[in-house]
Amino acid sequence: MWRELLPIGRHPDSRGYRRFAWTGADAECRAWFKEQAEARGLAYEVDRNGNQWAWLGDPGAGDAVVTGSHLDSVPDGGAFDGPLGVVSSFAALDELRGRGVEFSKPLAIVNFGDEEGARFGLACVGSRLTAGQLTVEKAHKLTDGDGISLPRAMEAAGYDPDAIGADPDRLGRIGAFVELHVEQGRALALSDSGSAAGSGDRIGIASAIWPHGRWRFDFRGEANHAGTTRLVDRRDPMLSYAETVLAARREAELAGAVATFGKITVEPNGVNAIPSLVRGWLDSRAEDQERLDAVVGGIENAAREYAAAHGIELDVVRESFTPVVEFDHALRDELARILGKDTDITVPVLGTGAGHDAGILSGSIPTAMLFVRNPTGVSHSPAEFAAEDDCVAGVLALADVLEGLACR
Amino acid sequence: MWRELLPIGRHPDSRGYRRFAWTGADAECRAWFKEQAEARGLAYEVDRNGNQWAWLGDPGAGDAVVTGSHLDSVPDGGAFDGPLGVVSSFAALDELRGRGVEFSKPLAIVNFGDEEGARFGLACVGSRLTAGQLTVEKAHKLTDGDGISLPRAMEAAGYDPDAIGADPDRLGRIGAFVELHVEQGRALALSDSGSAAGSGDRIGIASAIWPHGRWRFDFRGEANHAGTTRLVDRRDPMLSYAETVLAARREAELAGAVATFGKITVEPNGVNAIPSLVRGWLDSRAEDQERLDAVVGGIENAAREYAAAHGIELDVVRESFTPVVEFDHALRDELARILGKDTDITVPVLGTGAGHDAGILSGSIPTAMLFVRNPTGVSHSPAEFAAEDDCVAGVLALADVLEGLACR
Repeated sequence: MWRELLPIGRHPDSRGYRRFAWTGADAECRAWFKEQAEARGLAYEVDRNGNQWAWLGDPGAGDAVVTGSHLDSVPDGGAFDGPLGVVSSFAALDELRGRGVEFSKPLAIVNFGDEEGARFGLACVGSRLTAGQLTVEKAHKLTDGDGISLPRAMEAAGYDPDAIGADPDRLGRIGAFVELHVEQGRALALSDSGSAAGSGDRIGIASAIWPHGRWRFDFRGEANHAGTTRLVDRRDPMLSYAETVLAARREAELAGAVATFGKITVEPNGVNAIPSLVRGWLDSRAEDQERLDAVVGGIENAAREYAAAHGIELDVVRESFTPVVEFDHALRDELARILGKDTDITVPVLGTGAGHDAGILSGSIPTAMLFVRNPTGVSHSPAEFAAEDDCVAGVLALADVLEGLACR
Repeated sequence: MWRELLPIGRHPDSRGYRRFAWTGADAECRAWFKEQAEARGLAYEVDRNGNQWAWLGDPGAGDAVVTGSHLDSVPDGGAFDGPLGVVSSFAALDELRGRGVEFSKPLAIVNFGDEEGARFGLACVGSRLTAGQLTVEKAHKLTDGDGISLPRAMEAAGYDPDAIGADPDRLGRIGAFVELHVEQGRALALSDSGSAAGSGDRIGIASAIWPHGRWRFDFRGEANHAGTTRLVDRRDPMLSYAETVLAARREAELAGAVATFGKITVEPNGVNAIPSLVRGWLDSRAEDQERLDAVVGGIENAAREYAAAHGIELDVVRESFTPVVEFDHALRDELARILGKDTDITVPVLGTGAGHDAGILSGSIPTAMLFVRNPTGVSHSPAEFAAEDDCVAGVLALADVLEGLACR
């Protein structure tokens, strides 16, 4: 199952994945999902927002237990972020059928569309639309780097962009959603709660998703000849940008948060031209809102000082923001009880800086997450990795959780 | 004449010019040149490298006096860099005909192709090929950002890429080349040699082109998730890049030189991804070789220290280099004598950080340059400007020079 999925959308040079929403690679991943559902005799359906579902039992019965994740990737992403959760869902179902359990509730496996937002710049489009956290009007205005709109891209992939929108009836039939995901840091690898699984713990439960956001910094100076313009006559926005990148690191260190300038565009971007515009995007996340405000405020103040000193105009625009997400406490405790019941160890509960479909849905339905250990913490990179033993542990933990939730 | 040229290749949003070699805008500029030549009864020809020539008198007679410049532009360039020299050449010829002078030598006006190198990354391709400073083999390997090779681009524009190459016979028939150009700094605006033309001087004579080069700095780190990777676990190349940008400014200030990071590419360039690669291009120029070596050496040393501190691999590649160009002293003194003969003022002689076709040709034939005052020093930008009075002064000065050289 894993092996069939591995080659799809993999770039031969970078060895990273380029599975962007509504592209050919995405369609191949979606065909794989449909095959897996049909091979298991599950009822396959696509909802109005293009998310894929595979049902065991009657979807209309209500109080369903749902698990799954996403199959799309960031540019040159790894094999695990997303797919591990979908593959583990099918494997956990196989495990439960092997155990011969009887289900008292309907069970579904889901693949949410466009989680990474790599193509249209907004993450979790599939779950946001379903949860009513993204309006149809705004979704229709999303465009990719080539100027292709989301509706045109969906149409080209054979989906109806006029059908998209909130889906409260569907969410109303779900009693719990559990998403398994590779951890995107080293908290499990570094933790030690007494398990025998080598260093750290194999599996963790999510407590909360840190508040996070994206801010665009536009530094505007004056384009000029790099060879003939005296230093004192320059208004070079690259200097203010560089100082701001370093300020972001300092502010994040001070607050125990993270802050990253990972994307930049420059105009005119010529070797012998002082730029007229340097546009940098800040991604910042912190454990709580107060710290995040302090970090971003500190960076913005520093940037304004640098810009003023160089005669640069600065605009700062908050492009997206997600407040802290606390996962459902009752469901989280239930997962801890299920996973700890045969042992005397405590499964670690940890926060995360990454956004997930589970975070979006937690505003509508009880939601929880399981994390699988990541030995290096590397994610969003071809080097992303989880050990096979840990993946198997993840499948068994997910099977235990599904059994505990859907078979009581 | 100027008015017909103004709208060609101008971008409606930026108001800047995008006249790149062998594009439609370039073809329009070339058609304009041909019309101007024919309207004056000059013999029009295109040489093997696609440079355009307009001849008065017998090209084969030898010891020709040639003037001209280029019509292509940098991305979103200004109206004057290049075209002012070509337009002034035709206008100076009109002035000389008005004066009723008799020419004792052949005179030609030239438009060199692809001076800015905006499309294929190498400047002065037309003059380099002619002077034998660029081999046919290397020229054939040049490709633009869309992967289109120079030969394919020339063919698409109706030129024969197999005909290109050194043209010593043509250069051998030229006794002097004079290029008029808008100044790309404020030396004339700030100088004061006793002229009555408001602040500064309207016209200057070039002494030398500073040695200059381009260096590519590849900072390689590790792509990772910007939300979940702890600061201590990061190998973020954007930090070393930012520190190096600031080091470049410091080193240039210390040496009285210029150093600019104006072009950057980032991989994967995602908002929520720590970059795996930040590639920045340094353009640096100084009055002499020793200072340039000190500046670039200082920047590279600083970059290596920063990279080592962040666990970043650094490669520095010199992509191009041009040693100092001293213009022909006898011709320079002759120009100063001609321009100073009716006044008691001295025309200022100044160095420049910009490369020019005149710099390339100075290795083969006696070459000189005239600069026209630039009040703001802005160049390679839509805001590039020269006052009409100063442009007229430039035409008259060029006419004086051509009369002095070709009518003695």
